[in-house]
Amino acid sequence: MKLPISVEWKKDHLQLLDQTLLPTQTLFFRCDTAQDVWQAIKSLRVRGAPAIGIAGAFGFYLGMIPFEKLSMSEFLLKAKEVFQYLNSSRPTAVNLQWALSRQLTLIQNFQSTGTDKTQTTKELLQKILQEALNIQEEDRSICYRIGINALPLIKEGMGILTHCNPGAIAVSEWGTALAPLHMAKQQGINFKVYVDETRPLLQGGRLTTWELMQSGIDCTLITDSMAAMVMSQGKVQMVIVGTDRVVANGDMANKIGTMNLAILAKHFKIPFYVACPSSTFDFSTTCGSDIEIEERPSSEITHFKGQLVAPEDVKVYNPAFDVTPCELITGMVTENGIYSYPYIEKIKDDFRQSNS
Amino acid sequence: MKLPISVEWKKDHLQLLDQTLLPTQTLFFRCDTAQDVWQAIKSLRVRGAPAIGIAGAFGFYLGMIPFEKLSMSEFLLKAKEVFQYLNSSRPTAVNLQWALSRQLTLIQNFQSTGTDKTQTTKELLQKILQEALNIQEEDRSICYRIGINALPLIKEGMGILTHCNPGAIAVSEWGTALAPLHMAKQQGINFKVYVDETRPLLQGGRLTTWELMQSGIDCTLITDSMAAMVMSQGKVQMVIVGTDRVVANGDMANKIGTMNLAILAKHFKIPFYVACPSSTFDFSTTCGSDIEIEERPSSEITHFKGQLVAPEDVKVYNPAFDVTPCELITGMVTENGIYSYPYIEKIKDDFRQSNS
Repeated sequence: MKLPISVEWKKDHLQLLDQTLLPTQTLFFRCDTAQDVWQAIKSLRVRGAPAIGIAGAFGFYLGMIPFEKLSMSEFLLKAKEVFQYLNSSRPTAVNLQWALSRQLTLIQNFQSTGTDKTQTTKELLQKILQEALNIQEEDRSICYRIGINALPLIKEGMGILTHCNPGAIAVSEWGTALAPLHMAKQQGINFKVYVDETRPLLQGGRLTTWELMQSGIDCTLITDSMAAMVMSQGKVQMVIVGTDRVVANGDMANKIGTMNLAILAKHFKIPFYVACPSSTFDFSTTCGSDIEIEERPSSEITHFKGQLVAPEDVKVYNPAFDVTPCELITGMVTENGIYSYPYIEKIKDDFRQSNS
Repeated sequence: MKLPISVEWKKDHLQLLDQTLLPTQTLFFRCDTAQDVWQAIKSLRVRGAPAIGIAGAFGFYLGMIPFEKLSMSEFLLKAKEVFQYLNSSRPTAVNLQWALSRQLTLIQNFQSTGTDKTQTTKELLQKILQEALNIQEEDRSICYRIGINALPLIKEGMGILTHCNPGAIAVSEWGTALAPLHMAKQQGINFKVYVDETRPLLQGGRLTTWELMQSGIDCTLITDSMAAMVMSQGKVQMVIVGTDRVVANGDMANKIGTMNLAILAKHFKIPFYVACPSSTFDFSTTCGSDIEIEERPSSEITHFKGQLVAPEDVKVYNPAFDVTPCELITGMVTENGIYSYPYIEKIKDDFRQSNS
C-alpha cells in the first residue's frame, strides 16, 4: 500500500503524475526543462494548489540550469524571466507565485560562501534545488500533521463523506482532508467513504475514488445529489472536506457543492470538518461574502468530453466555489490541531503566536 | 409560443417526439403499428409516466386494427396478446399497465349498439381509439388544473428552482410542476428559473431547459451542487418539483436530489412545493421509509456516453429516487387545489369525497 506521489524529484529531472488521464490511465512523465513544467501546469496535468507550487519551484530550478555559466547579475536577470514565464502558466494560482517568489528572493538574498567566484552560480543552483525540496518537505510535514491531528476523528466502522479531491495527489503527500483517511487505513481502522462525484469537473469521481482505492480504502461513488439520501439512511457519521480560503470571521470557500453538504450535515446532525494548512487563512478578508467567486466557462456544464448535453444556447451559471458560513462548521483541522466551533479567535491567537 | 406535445394522434397514426435526441435534435416520428410503439417505449424515445401510458393506449389501438375482420371472441383473444406485448415494453411502468387495462376492460365490457354483427369490431375499434383520446384528454385536463391552481404562486420577478423534468413532454400537455410556469409566461409574467441538471441522467439539463426555452422562459442551467449557492444569493423564492409517489403520511418519493433541495429550501426559508395529479397518491403505503427505492446500474454514473469517467471497478450507489419527509414540504398542488402543510388529512378527505 503506497500513497501516490504526484510531484517527485528524481535526481536530475522532475517526475509528474498526469492527472488528466486519471482514472483510466496511471501515467508518470518526466520534465527536463522549465518549458516541460510550464506545459504540464498549463494543461492541468498537474493540479492542486500545493502540487502546482512545488512543481513550479522545481521548474524554476530546471529553468535556471542553462544559465550556470552567466555572471551573477545576468543570472538574476534570467531568474526574473523564468519567474515571469512559469508564473504565466497559471496566473491565478497563489501557491505558484508564492513558490516562485521564494526562489527569486533566495537568489536576491544570496551571499556566496565560497571564495572562488566561478563557483557562485553553481552553488546558487544547488540552493535553488534545495529550496524546491524544502518547499516540498514543508508541505509534506504540514499535511502529515493535519492527518495526525484529524486521525482521532476516524472511528472503526464509521461512514465518511467527502467532496472534490483534498487528497495526496493535490499536494506533496498525504493530502489535507484525505490525509487522516490514508493514515487510519494504514493503522488498520476500517471505515467507508462516500465520494461525491463533484460536478462539473468530477474531481471526486475521477481522482478521489482512484486515490482512496490506491490506499485500499472502501469507497463508494455517488452523485452530488445523493448526499442527503446517504445521510438520511444513517450511512454517514462525518463529513470532511478541504478549503481554498478561510477568512477572518471563519467562513470558508471551497469547491462548489461544499455548502450543500454543510447544510445537509447540520440537518442530519452530522459533524462537518474542514482540513487545511494554516497558510489557507486569509485574515485580510472580513467575511465570506467578501470572497470573490470565480465563474468558469459554461461549456464545463453544457459539454461532456466535447459532446453537447444541453441546449446549445442555454444560459449557464457556473461558480467554481461556494462559501460555507462558519456556524455550519463543527471544527477545523490544521497542522496545529483541531479547532472546534467557534474556532476563529483561537486560530488567530495560535497564528499570531507562531508568527511572532 | 407553442408548447411541445410529445404524444399526438394524427388522424391515422401516432406522432411521438424523440426525447433521446433532445436537446440537440427536435425530431418527431410516426408510429403506424403496435411494434413501432413498443420500440419507442423500449428505447426510451417516449418517457414520462403519463406520456408512456397515453402512447400505450394509442399503440393498443394501432395493434388491434389488423384484427377488424375477426369475430368478437377472436378479437378479445388478440386484445389480450396485444396487451401483454405492449406491457412488456416497460413492465414496471404503472401508467402503461393502467392505460392498457382500461382498453382491455373496455373490450370486455363492450356491448354493441348496432344490429349488424359485422359492424361490431369496427364499432369497437372506434371506441378503443376514443378511449385513448379520452385518457389523453383526462391527463391534459388534470395537468391544466394543476397549472391553474399553482399559477398564483408565480410572482413577477421571482426566481424558481426546479429539478428533473416534471414537464409538458412527460405528460399530455402543460406538465405538472412546470405547468404553472408555462401558464405564467403565457400571461406575460416574468420570472427566472434555475434548472438543476439532475445527475446522473441529466433530465434537467437535457429536457427541462429545452422545454422552458420553447416557452420563451428565462432559464439558467446549474449543476445539482449549486442549489445552495443560488439560494444563498437570494436568487430563489420558490422550489417546485414533481413526484412519483405520495404516501399516507404525506412523505413523497421523487428523482434523486429532491430531498437535498427540500432541506436546503428549509434552511434558507424558501417555500418548497410539490405538484402532482391525485393519481400519484398511494395511501396503502404508510410512510416514506416503506417506499422501495429502485437502484439503477452503476454505469449511469461511471460512464458518460460510453466513456469511462471513474475507476472501472469503483463501487457505486445509484438510487433513482429519494424520499422527502412531509414536514419539509410547504404545500402540495393537485388538480383539486393547493394543500398547505400539514396537508395530508385534507388531501385524504377530498380524495375520499371525489371517489365516493
